[in-house]
Amino acid sequence: MSESAEASEFSIDKIAPIPIHHTNMGNPNIQDAERAIFLTPSLEEEELLAWSKIRNYCQDFFSEFLGTMTLILFGDGVVAQVVLSGGTKGDYQSISWGWGIAVMLGVYVGGKSGGHLNPAVTLANCLYRGHPWRKLPVYALAQLLGAMAGAAIVYGNYKSAFDAFEGGAGIRTVTGPTATAGVFCTYPAPFMTRTGMFFSEFVASSILMFCIFALADPNNIGAGNLMPLCLFFLIFGIGACFGWETGYAINLARDFGPRLVSYMIGYGHEVWSAGGYYFWIPMVAPFLGCAFGGFLYDVFIFTGPSPINTPMLGLQRLMRPRRSVWSNTHQSTIETKV
Amino acid sequence: MSESAEASEFSIDKIAPIPIHHTNMGNPNIQDAERAIFLTPSLEEEELLAWSKIRNYCQDFFSEFLGTMTLILFGDGVVAQVVLSGGTKGDYQSISWGWGIAVMLGVYVGGKSGGHLNPAVTLANCLYRGHPWRKLPVYALAQLLGAMAGAAIVYGNYKSAFDAFEGGAGIRTVTGPTATAGVFCTYPAPFMTRTGMFFSEFVASSILMFCIFALADPNNIGAGNLMPLCLFFLIFGIGACFGWETGYAINLARDFGPRLVSYMIGYGHEVWSAGGYYFWIPMVAPFLGCAFGGFLYDVFIFTGPSPINTPMLGLQRLMRPRRSVWSNTHQSTIETKV
Amino acid sequence: MSESAEASEFSIDKIAPIPIHHTNMGNPNIQDAERAIFLTPSLEEEELLAWSKIRNYCQDFFSEFLGTMTLILFGDGVVAQVVLSGGTKGDYQSISWGWGIAVMLGVYVGGKSGGHLNPAVTLANCLYRGHPWRKLPVYALAQLLGAMAGAAIVYGNYKSAFDAFEGGAGIRTVTGPTATAGVFCTYPAPFMTRTGMFFSEFVASSILMFCIFALADPNNIGAGNLMPLCLFFLIFGIGACFGWETGYAINLARDFGPRLVSYMIGYGHEVWSAGGYYFWIPMVAPFLGCAFGGFLYDVFIFTGPSPINTPMLGLQRLMRPRRSVWSNTHQSTIETKV
Amino acid sequence: MSESAEASEFSIDKIAPIPIHHTNMGNPNIQDAERAIFLTPSLEEEELLAWSKIRNYCQDFFSEFLGTMTLILFGDGVVAQVVLSGGTKGDYQSISWGWGIAVMLGVYVGGKSGGHLNPAVTLANCLYRGHPWRKLPVYALAQLLGAMAGAAIVYGNYKSAFDAFEGGAGIRTVTGPTATAGVFCTYPAPFMTRTGMFFSEFVASSILMFCIFALADPNNIGAGNLMPLCLFFLIFGIGACFGWETGYAINLARDFGPRLVSYMIGYGHEVWSAGGYYFWIPMVAPFLGCAFGGFLYDVFIFTGPSPINTPMLGLQRLMRPRRSVWSNTHQSTIETKV
Repeated sequence: MSESAEASEFSIDKIAPIPIHHTNMGNPNIQDAERAIFLTPSLEEEELLAWSKIRNYCQDFFSEFLGTMTLILFGDGVVAQVVLSGGTKGDYQSISWGWGIAVMLGVYVGGKSGGHLNPAVTLANCLYRGHPWRKLPVYALAQLLGAMAGAAIVYGNYKSAFDAFEGGAGIRTVTGPTATAGVFCTYPAPFMTRTGMFFSEFVASSILMFCIFALADPNNIGAGNLMPLCLFFLIFGIGACFGWETGYAINLARDFGPRLVSYMIGYGHEVWSAGGYYFWIPMVAPFLGCAFGGFLYDVFIFTGPSPINTPMLGLQRLMRPRRSVWSNTHQSTIETKV
Repeated sequence: MSESAEASEFSIDKIAPIPIHHTNMGNPNIQDAERAIFLTPSLEEEELLAWSKIRNYCQDFFSEFLGTMTLILFGDGVVAQVVLSGGTKGDYQSISWGWGIAVMLGVYVGGKSGGHLNPAVTLANCLYRGHPWRKLPVYALAQLLGAMAGAAIVYGNYKSAFDAFEGGAGIRTVTGPTATAGVFCTYPAPFMTRTGMFFSEFVASSILMFCIFALADPNNIGAGNLMPLCLFFLIFGIGACFGWETGYAINLARDFGPRLVSYMIGYGHEVWSAGGYYFWIPMVAPFLGCAFGGFLYDVFIFTGPSPINTPMLGLQRLMRPRRSVWSNTHQSTIETKV
Repeated sequence: MSESAEASEFSIDKIAPIPIHHTNMGNPNIQDAERAIFLTPSLEEEELLAWSKIRNYCQDFFSEFLGTMTLILFGDGVVAQVVLSGGTKGDYQSISWGWGIAVMLGVYVGGKSGGHLNPAVTLANCLYRGHPWRKLPVYALAQLLGAMAGAAIVYGNYKSAFDAFEGGAGIRTVTGPTATAGVFCTYPAPFMTRTGMFFSEFVASSILMFCIFALADPNNIGAGNLMPLCLFFLIFGIGACFGWETGYAINLARDFGPRLVSYMIGYGHEVWSAGGYYFWIPMVAPFLGCAFGGFLYDVFIFTGPSPINTPMLGLQRLMRPRRSVWSNTHQSTIETKV
Repeated sequence: MSESAEASEFSIDKIAPIPIHHTNMGNPNIQDAERAIFLTPSLEEEELLAWSKIRNYCQDFFSEFLGTMTLILFGDGVVAQVVLSGGTKGDYQSISWGWGIAVMLGVYVGGKSGGHLNPAVTLANCLYRGHPWRKLPVYALAQLLGAMAGAAIVYGNYKSAFDAFEGGAGIRTVTGPTATAGVFCTYPAPFMTRTGMFFSEFVASSILMFCIFALADPNNIGAGNLMPLCLFFLIFGIGACFGWETGYAINLARDFGPRLVSYMIGYGHEVWSAGGYYFWIPMVAPFLGCAFGGFLYDVFIFTGPSPINTPMLGLQRLMRPRRSVWSNTHQSTIETKV
């Protein structure tokens, strides 16, 4: 399999090779021999374990889906609790905590696919760390759908509280004294200019990717097995230091997915028009920011394998758009037959 | 011993085999030879060290009892401090801290038995990780009694403060401006419907078990020796993100045990009737939620030994209720004679 | 040296053997050969490195002194900042943070002597972990003096702020609206009975020692190299859950040392008489509490070398007060001649 | 290279040797063979990879620059968010969090050069840990410029918020009800005397260096790979315990760099004159404090290679100012030819 080798990407120290499961289970070397007994497959296992094959094939999708779902469960959950309780069950710092924990646990859940949880992070991994390009749409779709699932569960969980806070079942407002749309996605502070919004998201995304690459760099100090914990601190920090102006979406899936859900729920057209049609900024700026942040790290610090460390800073990939140049996995289809 | 092999369960990286103590102590290879001297047993040690044998036999019970007692000491302690001081010695975030630390320290204390501290977690380990079924009642009883002991100690410690806050010795109220019953167990927010209460506990319990299995999965990133620390963040997160509506009991022992204690203390029948006889929801929902959360993880991500990874997702255990099928330890009584 | 073998005590995973320094420095195998050059002693090193010998001899004293000084610097420092700024530069939770960090850093600083920082912890280590009894007074003295030094530095640092808050240089009050004596040591909440005060300190000290032994037990999960971090959480938890009623002194050195300093500074006789001559409770209760907490852990969980795991739970030490029985190091003076 | 051997300095467990990059990339032993393919340099690599050579040569500069930039991005960022939002998006504790995370992430980013981020820390490393003296100006310059870059980015990011808070574009005040100069650098509390200011910065810097050396001492407990996390707690603790009176600059680069930026932006002469020309104190006191704190640790605890552990406590370096005595790298230019 040529695609299963992204092991050195950002959040994974070691990905155990995905075993073929029924073989593993019959393995007599398994540590807890006793426990394995009730798991020993009976006769027709070959035919029956179809699900393990499907899961193995879809592992990236499931992993990113559930990881991003966990991200949004905690992330939107904490905003819901703080907003709907009128600040009595949490404050701004709780939100920093909640989102930090959300990313930390999301990465633990989605570790098998790298725990990107963010299309912009996947893009940066494709650009600079050899993540296969053809996986980008799979990851992005899984992340988007996972975010939508998480937002829907949060809404279901807090439905009574939404009704109580908004003053009636079915009333859902984006602006005004009892606005609750901010539970799902980000809206900018009122004094922001368009340029300021874009710059703020761009800076926060750059810092995100720059620090992720620093934490994952084995030639630097490197976070090692503390990676998810360090991501907690990173997200907490971005929330505490750059989170006010635009709400630090820094993630298309995190913002657009729940925004779609809030539109479906009945918040109306204002989810798109609020803040001067702000909604497209957290869809675009994170990609540019993460690409720039990763570029900065690779140019000035990273010494491992990166296009930046090839002739002309890897720019011939842009200038000679042949598959053999831009594809991260091109030659492997020919050579990895051993 | 066939039951001492649950080592790969959730919160234990490595359980050292429980040594026969007096042998260990006489061992000349012990590192601190000097210190061992004052411990060298005198002549009749074989007869005298009866307690070590009893402790060894009851280790699971003692371990879960003391672990859950620690859990409730810190958990109910922090609520007592916040409530009885009128919010001047802590706020809602302190409660998140307190419960997170409570679980973390409880797991460290109760590590020898796996640090479940929660009958629903024990159930999920029986269902999916081969924990012996016959240990379930022992664990559940130890957890319940431990929770009651912890609640009683907290009450003893804060008795003067209860009297000062309620306005008199012996006055104990479940509702009203000086209600203190919330120190012991959870009561739902007033706007909640019955369905909402159940769903909220179910969702929180599902997330709990789903994340525990993710953190403990060695084929995923895995928390490794950071497990208790990660549980701190997990519980903090559940408290900050899903803790408002029903108080995130997610644990029969944590809720029913202290509720019994509060009934004994003299809070009256209202501890049962409050919230529309809410008390049964945190007794039932956590089991269903943890079973579902564990199922979700095993179906979509887990590749290690689990009934889900046997033919028909392990459902023949339900359909063929023979001991050889549903027992986690059945065949071992025959085969582990080597 | 027979006393240098307390390595398995609570907060130290591995204490590197204290090397004879000038030998080590001349060692050609040292990793950074280049850096060692400027350190190579010149001719008369044997005579000149007297200080290294003194330091080696006094290592326990220096280590506990500086560790406890660090403890009080951060601990009293945070209370000073919160109290003197009128709550604008911190709140009750800051105090939990400050004391947690204080213990964590104090243990890192005082690691060479075990990082006890507390006479009651030293006592429990003597009772249950073979710490040499004759070191107890050395440790206790170092801890007391270190605490006094820390309190004096905090006072020097915040002198202007004391004057500004109390309303004039030299005015120092123990009670009243601008009381600042609580910066140095603990005073009980006004509603507490004498029994309640004692019980509260006793319970908190028991929990402290019980959890320390759990965290340090290599046969349990064990905190390993996370020990100082876990102590942060433990102290934070005790502060958040049991810190209101008496201020969780749980340490003679931490309370009596700064109290002496505050008496010297000019707070007057009230530092002793306040709270019904409360001052003796944090001097006595921690010893009893720590002894009880350690006893509890060893009886019900600990399986390593402990007097509890000897015949008759080690009680013959109490009944036969001969040196060969109660001394932790007695026989070593005879036998360790190899 | 004689200067690349500072590996045992404070924040680095292991610095991987900086490889010559194009060699590494063509290495067939690279783990992810497949990914390496798109990185294989084409023909003229030798000529083209000039940038890798430049980066290698300037690694210390880039590393300290970007590390200190990260420090100020988060550190000034959190103050900006708290001040400009009027305390609604954070409070004093957020500032402790922000600066703690800032140092933690800054050290991860700047790990290749040791992550000093502070000229006073570099000085202490030169004095006591054999850091090459000639690197001191390079480090200090990189730190100063990095701090200025970080402050400029924070200003750009929050420009709209500055205007909204100050009441108009271009209005920038150092004192008064809408003063915002505190976002960039520190100003003392109004009640402080000159001596108090100096003493406060001196004490905080001493504690900083004393604790850094304790955390980095492999003969003590040692933070190991938890070093950046422990620095988070250390900085948080200094902020919570000693941060009120002067704002805990404890770093020339952190204070003077952003102060220069604020002067350029248009805050006027008052950035220098405020607090009785306070600005020079955080430029001088940290050097003295860090030198003293490091001295204290080496005298009383450190047993590894340090001038303190040479004859006469290393003071002959002061008395015999010959290059062979004071230079940390002198003899290496002669001897390291092997």
